[in-house]
Amino acid sequence: MIIVLKPGSGEAEIEHVLERISAMGLQAHLSRGEHRTIIGVIGEEDRLRVAPLSAIPGVEQVLPILKPFKLASREFHRENSVVNVASVAIGGGALAMIAGPCAVEGEELLVEIASQIRAAGANILRGGAFKPRTSPYSFQGLGEDGLKILRAVGDRFQLPVVTEVMDPRQVELVVRYADMLQIGARNMQNFNLLNEVGQARKPVLLKRGMSATVKDLLMSAEYVLASGNPSVVLCERGVRSFEDSTRNMLDLSCVPNVQGQSHLPIIVDPSHATGRPDLIPAMARAAVAAGADGVHVEVHSRPEHALSDGAQALLPNQYAELMTQLKRLAELMGRTIAAGRGGCV
Amino acid sequence: MIIVLKPGSGEAEIEHVLERISAMGLQAHLSRGEHRTIIGVIGEEDRLRVAPLSAIPGVEQVLPILKPFKLASREFHRENSVVNVASVAIGGGALAMIAGPCAVEGEELLVEIASQIRAAGANILRGGAFKPRTSPYSFQGLGEDGLKILRAVGDRFQLPVVTEVMDPRQVELVVRYADMLQIGARNMQNFNLLNEVGQARKPVLLKRGMSATVKDLLMSAEYVLASGNPSVVLCERGVRSFEDSTRNMLDLSCVPNVQGQSHLPIIVDPSHATGRPDLIPAMARAAVAAGADGVHVEVHSRPEHALSDGAQALLPNQYAELMTQLKRLAELMGRTIAAGRGGCV
Amino acid sequence: MIIVLKPGSGEAEIEHVLERISAMGLQAHLSRGEHRTIIGVIGEEDRLRVAPLSAIPGVEQVLPILKPFKLASREFHRENSVVNVASVAIGGGALAMIAGPCAVEGEELLVEIASQIRAAGANILRGGAFKPRTSPYSFQGLGEDGLKILRAVGDRFQLPVVTEVMDPRQVELVVRYADMLQIGARNMQNFNLLNEVGQARKPVLLKRGMSATVKDLLMSAEYVLASGNPSVVLCERGVRSFEDSTRNMLDLSCVPNVQGQSHLPIIVDPSHATGRPDLIPAMARAAVAAGADGVHVEVHSRPEHALSDGAQALLPNQYAELMTQLKRLAELMGRTIAAGRGGCV
Amino acid sequence: MIIVLKPGSGEAEIEHVLERISAMGLQAHLSRGEHRTIIGVIGEEDRLRVAPLSAIPGVEQVLPILKPFKLASREFHRENSVVNVASVAIGGGALAMIAGPCAVEGEELLVEIASQIRAAGANILRGGAFKPRTSPYSFQGLGEDGLKILRAVGDRFQLPVVTEVMDPRQVELVVRYADMLQIGARNMQNFNLLNEVGQARKPVLLKRGMSATVKDLLMSAEYVLASGNPSVVLCERGVRSFEDSTRNMLDLSCVPNVQGQSHLPIIVDPSHATGRPDLIPAMARAAVAAGADGVHVEVHSRPEHALSDGAQALLPNQYAELMTQLKRLAELMGRTIAAGRGGCV
Repeated sequence: MIIVLKPGSGEAEIEHVLERISAMGLQAHLSRGEHRTIIGVIGEEDRLRVAPLSAIPGVEQVLPILKPFKLASREFHRENSVVNVASVAIGGGALAMIAGPCAVEGEELLVEIASQIRAAGANILRGGAFKPRTSPYSFQGLGEDGLKILRAVGDRFQLPVVTEVMDPRQVELVVRYADMLQIGARNMQNFNLLNEVGQARKPVLLKRGMSATVKDLLMSAEYVLASGNPSVVLCERGVRSFEDSTRNMLDLSCVPNVQGQSHLPIIVDPSHATGRPDLIPAMARAAVAAGADGVHVEVHSRPEHALSDGAQALLPNQYAELMTQLKRLAELMGRTIAAGRGGCV
Repeated sequence: MIIVLKPGSGEAEIEHVLERISAMGLQAHLSRGEHRTIIGVIGEEDRLRVAPLSAIPGVEQVLPILKPFKLASREFHRENSVVNVASVAIGGGALAMIAGPCAVEGEELLVEIASQIRAAGANILRGGAFKPRTSPYSFQGLGEDGLKILRAVGDRFQLPVVTEVMDPRQVELVVRYADMLQIGARNMQNFNLLNEVGQARKPVLLKRGMSATVKDLLMSAEYVLASGNPSVVLCERGVRSFEDSTRNMLDLSCVPNVQGQSHLPIIVDPSHATGRPDLIPAMARAAVAAGADGVHVEVHSRPEHALSDGAQALLPNQYAELMTQLKRLAELMGRTIAAGRGGCV
Repeated sequence: MIIVLKPGSGEAEIEHVLERISAMGLQAHLSRGEHRTIIGVIGEEDRLRVAPLSAIPGVEQVLPILKPFKLASREFHRENSVVNVASVAIGGGALAMIAGPCAVEGEELLVEIASQIRAAGANILRGGAFKPRTSPYSFQGLGEDGLKILRAVGDRFQLPVVTEVMDPRQVELVVRYADMLQIGARNMQNFNLLNEVGQARKPVLLKRGMSATVKDLLMSAEYVLASGNPSVVLCERGVRSFEDSTRNMLDLSCVPNVQGQSHLPIIVDPSHATGRPDLIPAMARAAVAAGADGVHVEVHSRPEHALSDGAQALLPNQYAELMTQLKRLAELMGRTIAAGRGGCV
Repeated sequence: MIIVLKPGSGEAEIEHVLERISAMGLQAHLSRGEHRTIIGVIGEEDRLRVAPLSAIPGVEQVLPILKPFKLASREFHRENSVVNVASVAIGGGALAMIAGPCAVEGEELLVEIASQIRAAGANILRGGAFKPRTSPYSFQGLGEDGLKILRAVGDRFQLPVVTEVMDPRQVELVVRYADMLQIGARNMQNFNLLNEVGQARKPVLLKRGMSATVKDLLMSAEYVLASGNPSVVLCERGVRSFEDSTRNMLDLSCVPNVQGQSHLPIIVDPSHATGRPDLIPAMARAAVAAGADGVHVEVHSRPEHALSDGAQALLPNQYAELMTQLKRLAELMGRTIAAGRGGCV
């Protein structure tokens, strides 16, 4: 940490700051400039992070030097982490192609969708059983019935399944049915939920919050890692902005930005980011070209009948066409797309 | 709802849209303009809200006419709601003056702070026992011990107490100790938690999420109201923005904006909004002048020793000076500041 | 400046950074921490600001210590500046009450409006002759004819007049007619225009850009000051945000934030900020309570006939009612509202 | 346009609205719903756009149906426009690869850079002679001397040149030296400048403003087109956001979003968007994969000596490596990269 003192700080104030630093078990390095006095604070990393330096009278700014996350950082773990979702590897050159409807609405429909995304090359099936909806009057998901359907259809098509968990009390239930637990954007800083999935033995798909910085996202991953679960895949899904022609603003620079600082895989969800099927293919291609470790796309075979977010889904044939492009791009980028769990369907 | 069709929509497409609307149990009003065909959709309000109109092929835009919330709306409840927190009324001309430390850190310290804010005119005591912290390595609160201290100090100074609840599993515990349950900004769209506090018999202080629109905030209030709890006080506490010299951007226009649409009281928290003690007094005054139903300020008597957010707290004497100004402003605005629960201390 | 080196920087890299600093005529203070090596860079202020330190290999971050503006800073000029617009003082306790229509549309209408705002207590008349419009097909203003009308009506009601200048080539013309030159939000970083009004002998009303930070705003003021014009009044008028129920987001914390760092007066424009007449009175009151040096409100007597932005204007009687409130608030705040230039009308 | 009336509007109010619409020369279509009365307004497009409907008493909302731009819209011009910059075509499958230093600093240096980017495959040379700088104390460019150097070096390497024009008074001068006129982000809504370059006979590179929506960008292009210049290339270069680890947030979805609505080519500038050389290659690849019509990258051979923005430039060898990737991606996307103007150098 570096402390910058207010202009005109007198000896008594400087002395007091030095005393406080010392009382916190830290060392101070004083340096008097022409315009400002600055103090370098040195000490054990964990102690530094939580020291209330900025509240000391006379302190103008506190400039952090160290990253506030540790287990998620590339300095802690140099190599890219590979997260295995059942038999599908994500990271280290292997791409996750996650697809499926926003919500599980019924078995027949999910079979219809799963069969087509499987044929197109998707390797993980998604579908919500517990749905976070802005309105209490909207469809909230089928709950455990939805989980059962998702599991059955995943097994039938040999696709691992990922589904959202919204409540610490649901984790045990969802773990029984799903291969991967999704934390939605609205829950990225639901720290109790992060701690709970951190104790689960299933990988976690952690979506970036709508107003989370890249650092915030990595701090939330740190919660899961610090609770004991090393299998975290991050997901960029757009952030809130002033642009009103798309649902959110997809921040693709998040991909190389995360990859420079962290060993964790990061995938991209252009469906929630744009909310517009006409923009999804271009953004999915851009994600792979940017080096993302996978793409998450909502696919629905009858969007006008969908109970949730039908308007942002691709049709199965649109998804198939997109996957043709993504496979060629992946090859160009030296990446592979693992097949689903088993052999033929 | 109004549906705008894409330019060049043919008869078959128009026919299909009309069929879909009819199949949803709604009525359609067709109107062919020079450049666009538009369809007014009429029907029962609840049915309209959830109809997946935008996914029908040929539809360019769906323009909602009705507000998506109902119980929270002023159309549903014309008069201003008054929420009673123990003996302190909020709304309808009565101002909540909530103050206290970010976190409950110990009884002695809380007594010191409570005694001073009580003397200054605060009528509700705040203090966190469960703390949402960006870092898993930061102080997470004293838990039930903190609740006990808060209750004891509140009783001693005859101040009702408000404290944050972060997890649906904590609601029962927190209800036992607190007079008002706070939902923090990061949990504004934790819908399971909203449902849970919606079933509690204690008023709820619902803070605006960092990227929540005014509509989102009112939709989250709707969750609590729809779960059966009519006592919701909203709180503007700043939103994320590009401005980097303040912690968040305080959106004071939220106050009259909410009051125009909703009967619920709304207070302002300049402490979290700005993160800067030098800006808090001006923003607290502005809140009262804008018509807010109260002000929420963090006060700490030893900020440089605080375990959480000490740098954004006012000192007790600064708070007392601010309260002198706020009382005069409140009088000018025709508002009253109720005293705490009992008589003198 | 403080330079933080990348982790694992070797002696050769450190040596190179030190050499570069020395070659720029600056001094370096090396300090080796456990995790990072940092270098304090000391030297003449102006040299420091422009030194390309972050491009030196091995440098991870450059942390600025000094404010990048000088003439606008309170360190340079301790006392509040008072800017005189003809006979009306702004700053130092005197409030500017600027009102008038968005655009000058004709003499009769302007007389009607001016007479009413004058009676209500406004002390400066506004009206656009050159209008920045998002669409090339919208009304662009009456040009010099508009300036003539504005001048005549201002003289008749003894109100100084302020009007926007959009182009360096217009400055000479506008100076002939106006008492104060407005730089609109879209031109806040039109640096050639800033230089040009910096050479004019008339005070400047500088509006904050829609995505300008407080620092950016002060840097733009610095352009005007550095060109030789000491009379700058800043204006907060809302910034772009994700909130879609108001035109912009009014950042009232900008007022005390600027006042802490700069000696320049700052006023608030709730009309452009909110775009909604129902929110303007509350935000105008909040501005005065926050300590603003004035309020800028659009008033139109026939908004449904207005050629520009009629929907965001107050009616004259609404303005009169607002002014009654503002006068009492100003008194409470210890501020005065100077009358217009002369005696009776 | 669709007008939604306030709830509870009586007959007199409805009648007044209908009269106003009629007085504006427009036709009204009344439709009474259960909760709201709505009025469809039909008439000549240009008249509709400017009618002050929202200021009529009783009107709650005005919902626009038509796009506010015309000449820039794909409805007006179905085919993709191809803009020729000297001999280099942009659009219609041909990619612009624009590279060069932020500012022209001297002939020797520019020759060094141009020779290397030419060898790497760039087809247009960039370099600023007039620099918009946040600080009045930063290097402001070499002016006409810079233009002369740019022209000479462009000719020597047979690369067309693009450079920024900041002031209407500079247009005539810059037109004499440059093949393409750049309007910077800060001037995107400098409407007088847009009108001026709209009268020039040189193509325009129009950069998106930092808080401009996609619609705003297209409206600014409309200004240039409406002034008579059909040769506009748009440029996405990042917008302001809360994310503080990058300079701006690159909104790549802008590319397919613009291409769906407009016939104008659009390129991407990852240098200004990210401000970080470590993120530029990934974002440049993503741009091409998203379908952009070109990429604009700052390259400097001695960034630590640069007078402007050296820290965000790629080194020539980094650029060469990136171009190798971009060429393969372009091929995969079915795009071509035209060579510079002439034969060998």
